[in-house]
Amino acid sequence: MSDTRTGTDAKPVKKVVLAYSGGLDTSIILKWLQTTYGCEVVTFTADLGQGEELEPARRKAELLGIKPENIFIEDLREEFVRDYVFPMFRANAVYEGVYLLGTSIARPLIAKKQIEIAERVGADAVCHGATGKGNDQVRFELGYYALKPDVTVIAPWREWDLKSREQLIAFAEQHQIPISKDKRGESPFSVDANLLHASSEGKVLEDPADEVPDYVFSRTISPEEAPDTPTIVTIGFEKGDAVSIDGQALSPASLLARLNQLGHDNGIGRLDLVENRFVGMKSRGMYETPGGTILLPAHRAIESITLDRGAAHLKDQLMPQYAELIYNGFWFSPEREMLQALIDKSQEHVTGAVRLKLYKGGVHVIGRTSPHSLYDQDLVTFEEGAVAYDHRDAAGFIKLNALRLRTLAQRKKRDGA
Amino acid sequence: MSDTRTGTDAKPVKKVVLAYSGGLDTSIILKWLQTTYGCEVVTFTADLGQGEELEPARRKAELLGIKPENIFIEDLREEFVRDYVFPMFRANAVYEGVYLLGTSIARPLIAKKQIEIAERVGADAVCHGATGKGNDQVRFELGYYALKPDVTVIAPWREWDLKSREQLIAFAEQHQIPISKDKRGESPFSVDANLLHASSEGKVLEDPADEVPDYVFSRTISPEEAPDTPTIVTIGFEKGDAVSIDGQALSPASLLARLNQLGHDNGIGRLDLVENRFVGMKSRGMYETPGGTILLPAHRAIESITLDRGAAHLKDQLMPQYAELIYNGFWFSPEREMLQALIDKSQEHVTGAVRLKLYKGGVHVIGRTSPHSLYDQDLVTFEEGAVAYDHRDAAGFIKLNALRLRTLAQRKKRDGA
Amino acid sequence: MSDTRTGTDAKPVKKVVLAYSGGLDTSIILKWLQTTYGCEVVTFTADLGQGEELEPARRKAELLGIKPENIFIEDLREEFVRDYVFPMFRANAVYEGVYLLGTSIARPLIAKKQIEIAERVGADAVCHGATGKGNDQVRFELGYYALKPDVTVIAPWREWDLKSREQLIAFAEQHQIPISKDKRGESPFSVDANLLHASSEGKVLEDPADEVPDYVFSRTISPEEAPDTPTIVTIGFEKGDAVSIDGQALSPASLLARLNQLGHDNGIGRLDLVENRFVGMKSRGMYETPGGTILLPAHRAIESITLDRGAAHLKDQLMPQYAELIYNGFWFSPEREMLQALIDKSQEHVTGAVRLKLYKGGVHVIGRTSPHSLYDQDLVTFEEGAVAYDHRDAAGFIKLNALRLRTLAQRKKRDGA
Amino acid sequence: MSDTRTGTDAKPVKKVVLAYSGGLDTSIILKWLQTTYGCEVVTFTADLGQGEELEPARRKAELLGIKPENIFIEDLREEFVRDYVFPMFRANAVYEGVYLLGTSIARPLIAKKQIEIAERVGADAVCHGATGKGNDQVRFELGYYALKPDVTVIAPWREWDLKSREQLIAFAEQHQIPISKDKRGESPFSVDANLLHASSEGKVLEDPADEVPDYVFSRTISPEEAPDTPTIVTIGFEKGDAVSIDGQALSPASLLARLNQLGHDNGIGRLDLVENRFVGMKSRGMYETPGGTILLPAHRAIESITLDRGAAHLKDQLMPQYAELIYNGFWFSPEREMLQALIDKSQEHVTGAVRLKLYKGGVHVIGRTSPHSLYDQDLVTFEEGAVAYDHRDAAGFIKLNALRLRTLAQRKKRDGA
Repeated sequence: MSDTRTGTDAKPVKKVVLAYSGGLDTSIILKWLQTTYGCEVVTFTADLGQGEELEPARRKAELLGIKPENIFIEDLREEFVRDYVFPMFRANAVYEGVYLLGTSIARPLIAKKQIEIAERVGADAVCHGATGKGNDQVRFELGYYALKPDVTVIAPWREWDLKSREQLIAFAEQHQIPISKDKRGESPFSVDANLLHASSEGKVLEDPADEVPDYVFSRTISPEEAPDTPTIVTIGFEKGDAVSIDGQALSPASLLARLNQLGHDNGIGRLDLVENRFVGMKSRGMYETPGGTILLPAHRAIESITLDRGAAHLKDQLMPQYAELIYNGFWFSPEREMLQALIDKSQEHVTGAVRLKLYKGGVHVIGRTSPHSLYDQDLVTFEEGAVAYDHRDAAGFIKLNALRLRTLAQRKKRDGA
Repeated sequence: MSDTRTGTDAKPVKKVVLAYSGGLDTSIILKWLQTTYGCEVVTFTADLGQGEELEPARRKAELLGIKPENIFIEDLREEFVRDYVFPMFRANAVYEGVYLLGTSIARPLIAKKQIEIAERVGADAVCHGATGKGNDQVRFELGYYALKPDVTVIAPWREWDLKSREQLIAFAEQHQIPISKDKRGESPFSVDANLLHASSEGKVLEDPADEVPDYVFSRTISPEEAPDTPTIVTIGFEKGDAVSIDGQALSPASLLARLNQLGHDNGIGRLDLVENRFVGMKSRGMYETPGGTILLPAHRAIESITLDRGAAHLKDQLMPQYAELIYNGFWFSPEREMLQALIDKSQEHVTGAVRLKLYKGGVHVIGRTSPHSLYDQDLVTFEEGAVAYDHRDAAGFIKLNALRLRTLAQRKKRDGA
Repeated sequence: MSDTRTGTDAKPVKKVVLAYSGGLDTSIILKWLQTTYGCEVVTFTADLGQGEELEPARRKAELLGIKPENIFIEDLREEFVRDYVFPMFRANAVYEGVYLLGTSIARPLIAKKQIEIAERVGADAVCHGATGKGNDQVRFELGYYALKPDVTVIAPWREWDLKSREQLIAFAEQHQIPISKDKRGESPFSVDANLLHASSEGKVLEDPADEVPDYVFSRTISPEEAPDTPTIVTIGFEKGDAVSIDGQALSPASLLARLNQLGHDNGIGRLDLVENRFVGMKSRGMYETPGGTILLPAHRAIESITLDRGAAHLKDQLMPQYAELIYNGFWFSPEREMLQALIDKSQEHVTGAVRLKLYKGGVHVIGRTSPHSLYDQDLVTFEEGAVAYDHRDAAGFIKLNALRLRTLAQRKKRDGA
Repeated sequence: MSDTRTGTDAKPVKKVVLAYSGGLDTSIILKWLQTTYGCEVVTFTADLGQGEELEPARRKAELLGIKPENIFIEDLREEFVRDYVFPMFRANAVYEGVYLLGTSIARPLIAKKQIEIAERVGADAVCHGATGKGNDQVRFELGYYALKPDVTVIAPWREWDLKSREQLIAFAEQHQIPISKDKRGESPFSVDANLLHASSEGKVLEDPADEVPDYVFSRTISPEEAPDTPTIVTIGFEKGDAVSIDGQALSPASLLARLNQLGHDNGIGRLDLVENRFVGMKSRGMYETPGGTILLPAHRAIESITLDRGAAHLKDQLMPQYAELIYNGFWFSPEREMLQALIDKSQEHVTGAVRLKLYKGGVHVIGRTSPHSLYDQDLVTFEEGAVAYDHRDAAGFIKLNALRLRTLAQRKKRDGA
């Protein structure tokens, strides 16, 4: 087998941990690693809630010659939501005003698990199936390097010379990789999915002037198809994280799954976006984040009565930077961790319940309560006789806030302007 | 007539310009100014699109003894939208994540006009009808002081001792001020309105756990009542400002009015919010901003293809601060003007059209085009033989971005952590 | 004794904790509290390193009729440096580019102690001697309110009608308060001092065009008087805090005192500044911060080899806001605590030693070492064969960073600009 | 002649504009371009105040076979200071707390001139002599791409396989490039210089624990050698830029040269720094910026009396980001231009004079005056009877600022904390 790599500086690799979905593309990569690097391949398949069975991936890996002890399969749904999705939602993070970072937030966890397995099995390399034009390669690799600085990273899409769908199929056929019928032609769009969202991009979505065709959506029905009657739901929060729905305590992943169902049924969470990639170009994507689109305004609503203004505004000010760090792949960076420390510090009293109306694509906050409310009327009257708010205080408040503006106006007058 | 002021430091005032709506409250203020300060009163009534006739205000002012040359009535709708609303929307400004600043943005214009009239008629004082617990007093007065530093500001609600509805009504009756029937009892909520929005707060809205009753809304039908068929609309932009709807060029105020109608008809723009006031407490308000709620995502969408990432992210980063300045009343401050210069600098190429689907409370961007698009596929292939994107570049890009993270990881390893 | 207060809304007070220096002004306040409020006065005198004996304050308080159990005297130097000065220096905080916040940082601690004593003795009020035009009144009172929301605050300088030096002296004589000779006339400037700094402002400093006269300085000799030979000193750091000088471990207060001596002797730490007060006007002050002026560049230097770029730049970006919070008196606010959490998170590895040359007013970093250095040459070569830095990576790094700029340039060309 | 490039993707180049100093290294590059690319070489030599004659560069270029019409020599000193240095000083820009960006700010201008010449002579490529590990390659190339997106960039240090000093010397000898004696051995440090500064890095500076040896400095005498008598100097400013020294109007470059002389003579402007490079590693450098080190505090001082607090704090907040953009090479980016618009907007009244004392390495502001001062005592008393500052206003100001802190404290009490 000839070397299909275009680069010339590939290092010898002994053992590589591949992020393996069981699909055609990562199966081709698996085989390509074996034939090109001549190395032992370890597969890692994770359930992050993408909605696919994992056992077929095990069978396929075995079929492609992976030893049973080199096949790792793990259900990461709870860890994903608890340690990645929820911390991010504490920050109310959105990228470029709207994107809920569904793809971005999953990458660090996969990278972390690959590195953990690499350490366990003594692998010297890791490999992912992200392309050379996207953000995901960056997110995977920054994660790898941050956790194992001496690791060798293999990014087949940047290395091989399989330039077309035809060549990939030919390579697969040559190596007896099973190909399902629908994978033979080029897909009209590509999909990434996990418990937080599904994203689609590519071909049919490439012209940002054209509406996203309905068949692209998989996680939601359209607002038009949603029921004519609103759904009312109450989300309970503790220290910034959602913990219950309509009074029923739920684990993080179960809770998000429940919100996803509610979002799906009410046509909630579709987003059509042109975004700026970290690698420098604009791309157009379609996102479906049904549960997250409900969770964000709910979290903001519980914060609205439990967070002080100073805390809330500081969070709002730093949010775009925090979101950008996650989008760009810097989850395992000191600055993300510092911002997380700041954010988490603010969530101690973010406890209570938010009532929402879900209706044909819309999420409407209609009520919020908290045992730690700062809104409570009683609070603003203080105990020992003092009146909390004397409206005459406002005069002084305004006067001193105005002082510098008056000084500026005096200067303008003096300057004859 | 005895002095109804509680303060003792009131200065003598010769002539005062009152922001006069023609309603009961400002009529009482008018009379109170005459009786308490014994000064000449000049009324200023503006049409900012609040949806009320102005001529009744003239007649009422005359009835209360104001000389015709002291009655100023002005249609400010175009100026309001062109010089205040649109510059603010260039910034995608929202306060605390959601509030479109509909009340905040109107105050500086009213303040400016009052001061202009004060200069013209030689008045030494200005007066507004905002209460002592809210933000509007701050916004008015910061505007006054910034434009005329030596002006005397009269804020009756902070000064007089008319403590209850009964006392106000008694004062009105005593002074032959006409009182319409529905004003005799205490209103279940209070309203502020202009071309951008209507806001309501008070009594029936006070408990943030309770849903806003339907009768509070005046600018929108409910999502449930909205048509079952979506409305498709195209908004044209030039240099960051909306200039046309479905191809028809419209003046700023006409355009916003049209968007308001579209929003109204599709149940768009209701917001139930607990917000943090500048004066230090939380309050619960209900806002209806039908047109603005359509305009914001449309502006973001046209920016998404015409703004560079660096420009877009800088704007996002500074937006919360810009919004806070407007909310707090610092429109006429150097820092707001500096931020505006930064924002306006970015809008030169923000030209094009955005197609939206309006449906039962939702605003969905479904397409965007621009003659200045940065997304255009042709753009990324350069003329003289250079290839714009070589995916091998990504390897170097990632490596150098990872370098500091790898160094940190090496330290961790070395430290035995 | 007639009421000397101008306000009319003073509440009855039973017991008040006064921040008492033992000097003439606070002695007048003490007596004024007794005569005006008719309340029991508790004095609190703290040693924050201002350089005055505390026992005379006790004797004077007794002389003025304070019961021994109502006299509180405490040495706060270690707590001051450890819990206030050092956390602030972790942030490299400077206000308006230069001011090291020496006065600002002492106020919260005094406020906290007053409140603690108030809780212990059952006092319902606290009192400070700061004037009505300055920042200190704000800092004291925000501290009081944040720690005991129902406390009554007495600010004599805003309340009484003792308008001139003569009236104060007369009041003192009337009440048998001892007056030292030099206090009879008006002081040419006023001083605040603690272990971190001494500040002076007022009369002779009022014209910012005029040089500060030499007699104003008390903590430093002038650079011209300083020795012709440089002093070399090494400061040791652990987790962001200075812990030793020239190898000798020192407690926080002892360390700062030692640095003060070094600064004094080398003419270091004088600052002549026009600053913007929180209350709205500009003021001109003179500050002497000998030790702090050495500590700041030393801390930056140890950070320069132990902090990652991402962490360092995030700190730099947020520093002005952190400094402003302290300057404005918001030490006990959620946002200051959130920023502190972020800052402290970054300091884990800020350990090592910095060598400095002190010479005639200048502080020059001449060397730094750390067991946790990120600069270490060995670090940048990784173990398993990988080369940390391939200069060809730079090409890809630049290309992708340039991509959006090239796209913009293509647009410019296309637009014919 | 064999190809000395390691890469394989070099495009054919017809004509290249080389940033040519006339020194050994760029002469080797010149010859390497001719032999490797076989292309026509155009040299560009600029006077940015580096302190070298330009005519020798012309003669050397001719000697190496460059046609006279392909030799471009330009004196850029005034443009450099007026359009690059001064705009940057309006921002008070410092990188990582201390570095005055002397190298960073020169690169965009050189890049711009190279591109202008490329457009004029029809060149399709540009070339610089910066190495593959530093920041300068990024700064040059981002400039090139931003101004001519289709240009081919040649970076010899990343391309050739001349790996050692010996190989370079051998190449030079082989091609009859004159070699001065002192260039034969490896230099103990490398220098970059322009009118703003000289920087040194490399070999003898590599250990950050070791003091910079005295022979590295070229632009300043040491503080110890400086005169025992202070020098007093007054800098005049107009709209944020320095325009005169001791009353004498000077052009930008002349003014900076004069400040450099003053700084040199007083031992001012040495900086020993470990900094974080954009390409990911830390480096240790030594900078001499004599004039800039005087200019920065002078500019801050004139701002201190002419800028409003809101404007000043906004500038301080954004400065680190602005400095980082320049450091990283993004001078020609929309975000830098947006920040510049914001900064320039603030400088309209930054006019006046600042008096400084220069003494043995120190720069001490001792006075400032301005016709537009906001400090002026007269300003704070307003004309029509109003008193600008009533100290009773402070009570209300504090009360409302404290309100949210009191509410928080009430919650803490209620929660039993």
